[in-house]
Amino acid sequence: PSKLYSNASEFIKKIKKIGEDDPRRITHCTKVGLALTLSSFLYYIRPLYDGFGEAGMWAILTVIFVFEFTVGGTLSKSINRGFATLLAAALGLGAHHFASVCGVKGKPIVVGLMVFSLAAVSTFIRFYPNVKRKYDYGVLIFIVTFTMVAVSGYRVGQILELAHQRLSTVLIGGATCMIISIFICPVWAGRDLQFLVAKNIEKLADFLQGFGGELLTCAGDESSNDSGAKNVEKSFLNGYKSVLDSKATVDLLANLAWWEPPHGKFKFNHPWKQYLKIGGLSRECASLIKSLNTYTISKSLTTAASSEFQTIIRQPCIEASTESAKSLIEIASAIKKMRPPGSAETHVQKAKSAADQLKTTLQNYSLPSKPDLQEMLPLLVATSVLIDIIDSVEEIALSVCE
Amino acid sequence: PSKLYSNASEFIKKIKKIGEDDPRRITHCTKVGLALTLSSFLYYIRPLYDGFGEAGMWAILTVIFVFEFTVGGTLSKSINRGFATLLAAALGLGAHHFASVCGVKGKPIVVGLMVFSLAAVSTFIRFYPNVKRKYDYGVLIFIVTFTMVAVSGYRVGQILELAHQRLSTVLIGGATCMIISIFICPVWAGRDLQFLVAKNIEKLADFLQGFGGELLTCAGDESSNDSGAKNVEKSFLNGYKSVLDSKATVDLLANLAWWEPPHGKFKFNHPWKQYLKIGGLSRECASLIKSLNTYTISKSLTTAASSEFQTIIRQPCIEASTESAKSLIEIASAIKKMRPPGSAETHVQKAKSAADQLKTTLQNYSLPSKPDLQEMLPLLVATSVLIDIIDSVEEIALSVCE
Repeated sequence: PSKLYSNASEFIKKIKKIGEDDPRRITHCTKVGLALTLSSFLYYIRPLYDGFGEAGMWAILTVIFVFEFTVGGTLSKSINRGFATLLAAALGLGAHHFASVCGVKGKPIVVGLMVFSLAAVSTFIRFYPNVKRKYDYGVLIFIVTFTMVAVSGYRVGQILELAHQRLSTVLIGGATCMIISIFICPVWAGRDLQFLVAKNIEKLADFLQGFGGELLTCAGDESSNDSGAKNVEKSFLNGYKSVLDSKATVDLLANLAWWEPPHGKFKFNHPWKQYLKIGGLSRECASLIKSLNTYTISKSLTTAASSEFQTIIRQPCIEASTESAKSLIEIASAIKKMRPPGSAETHVQKAKSAADQLKTTLQNYSLPSKPDLQEMLPLLVATSVLIDIIDSVEEIALSVCE
Repeated sequence: PSKLYSNASEFIKKIKKIGEDDPRRITHCTKVGLALTLSSFLYYIRPLYDGFGEAGMWAILTVIFVFEFTVGGTLSKSINRGFATLLAAALGLGAHHFASVCGVKGKPIVVGLMVFSLAAVSTFIRFYPNVKRKYDYGVLIFIVTFTMVAVSGYRVGQILELAHQRLSTVLIGGATCMIISIFICPVWAGRDLQFLVAKNIEKLADFLQGFGGELLTCAGDESSNDSGAKNVEKSFLNGYKSVLDSKATVDLLANLAWWEPPHGKFKFNHPWKQYLKIGGLSRECASLIKSLNTYTISKSLTTAASSEFQTIIRQPCIEASTESAKSLIEIASAIKKMRPPGSAETHVQKAKSAADQLKTTLQNYSLPSKPDLQEMLPLLVATSVLIDIIDSVEEIALSVCE
């Protein structure tokens, strides 16, 4: 029983964390409950909406399947569902009519063939990447509605009424979702995307700043670099890892943002493509940082061999890394506030001149005749990677300006 | 019109490619059509299954929403749907009964409150990562069924019959899907995962082999290294990039494979966790290869400065890269055939001794007093990265043995 209790408290802690990580989730749950209650009253209070009868069920189904966390998700599913139902109902009526002409014996066979071929073709179309990304749900609903209309045994008069009822309840359900998700504490995928991209750039900046700081402490006082301080630093030096795996999330958000109407500061020019590009560039930069991390922090700075060479290149390294961090911070805040990045350009220039200094040092430095290449290697790599990181930072700065 | 025509032919080409990329997709479409036709006859042929009536519709709905490309996907959704319907129907009946006690006026309020709170709580639970991964669809169906049963205005006798009908049609639909997807040309997610992991390792091997080859041609004849041959080589040197982005696919497949019954060579020990681990290690290795690529192919080998140092380290580099490629190929085929990797270990040993040779060369080599560090750098990096790649290959080999 004590184990059960600890398990339960563990579970409750996790649940709490989910809510604390993103309080909008709690609002979202309330919104879903609200939408569902509203649409279920459509079904429940018979005297009020006697016209809908059983079809009121479709409003409930629509609300549950259509309501998503972001506005973009809800709109995408609602619109997909609405159009697919409309199209499939029309086609299904046609198929039903056509099959009725074939006589009592032929009808099941004709309907069966039509359902089979339509389902097979639609399922195949779902593999088409563009369809899969945007209209997957619509195609599914299309198959459902078509099959149900085509196989139903009603007379045409009844079927028209049924189609009308179903369509209007689906529309009511969809409209409820759209209105609630847009007007009550909306969660815009576009805004999430914007902040995610900015956050990722900030993480890169954190690393570069921390890296510069670590170099600085090494230069100043070797003994202060004890393992306790090390761990504190390490924790924020690890942020770049999540940037590497952010591709799927960024792609998904951009996809959802595509559906959203102009809102807030976005007006009519949704810069999703720019965001995707910046996201890609920051992943590139993160992977450079990863090599920097494996070849320096883990290898060189722990042994902390301070040769003459090291002292020469340390200063420009610190300069390059902190300056590029500053420009990244500038860029991130520019993305968040949607204004041109002001001083980012000057920081990039400073970082570049530091990089140039490193390059000339590398070209002209005369080594002792028998240096320990293995020991020097991390520093060389660090230098070279830093130069590349600065290029990559410059590219990010350029694409933000667009 | 000619533009329209070219667009159409473009589209048809793409469609063809989708089919050619994976012919199982075409089989899948036929299977969906078959399942749907079978379940629609349940609805259509009235005299045969008069007992089901309108509820036959649920078999159609179930088939369309539940049938997925892989066996694991279909099973996961069928089982989720079945259990969720059962649980929600029972709870819904209870709620309905409880609300009926509260009198005509109280009933809508009580039902509304229950629907609201249940929907809100269930939606919140969907954010819990473990639930989201495996039971997302089940929770959705649970909310749907509960709401529909709870709000329905039937008397209890009728509602029991309705629940019985619905449950049996859902089960029939689910069973149809499961049987068709398991027994007619099954697509096992576990098998796909196995081949994807092996394929990724092969891509890494391709790169290392190509890299060794490129070093070899540079050593042999500089002039043969024209841009034509370069492009051919580049194409297979780029395979590692898709490995970097494979995380989402591998995770998804492992998730689906979790649902699959023992089949083929898998018996009762599904090694999904091993596959995930190997997948992670090969991504690590791919990111090392990426740094190798940026710092060597693009920079050093195009300028092809052949200093004395270059000639010394070239031979062990070639050795290290081809030997590790051989051992990766061995590992990949071992994963495919599910047997212990035979000669992989010896290749790893050879690669390691080459790496050791590189290390001692680096430690003892005496440079000219004023070397061009910028030109040497790529080679140094290449050496160091190769050493790390070999470590990573060894790790992969070890985890395959498990």
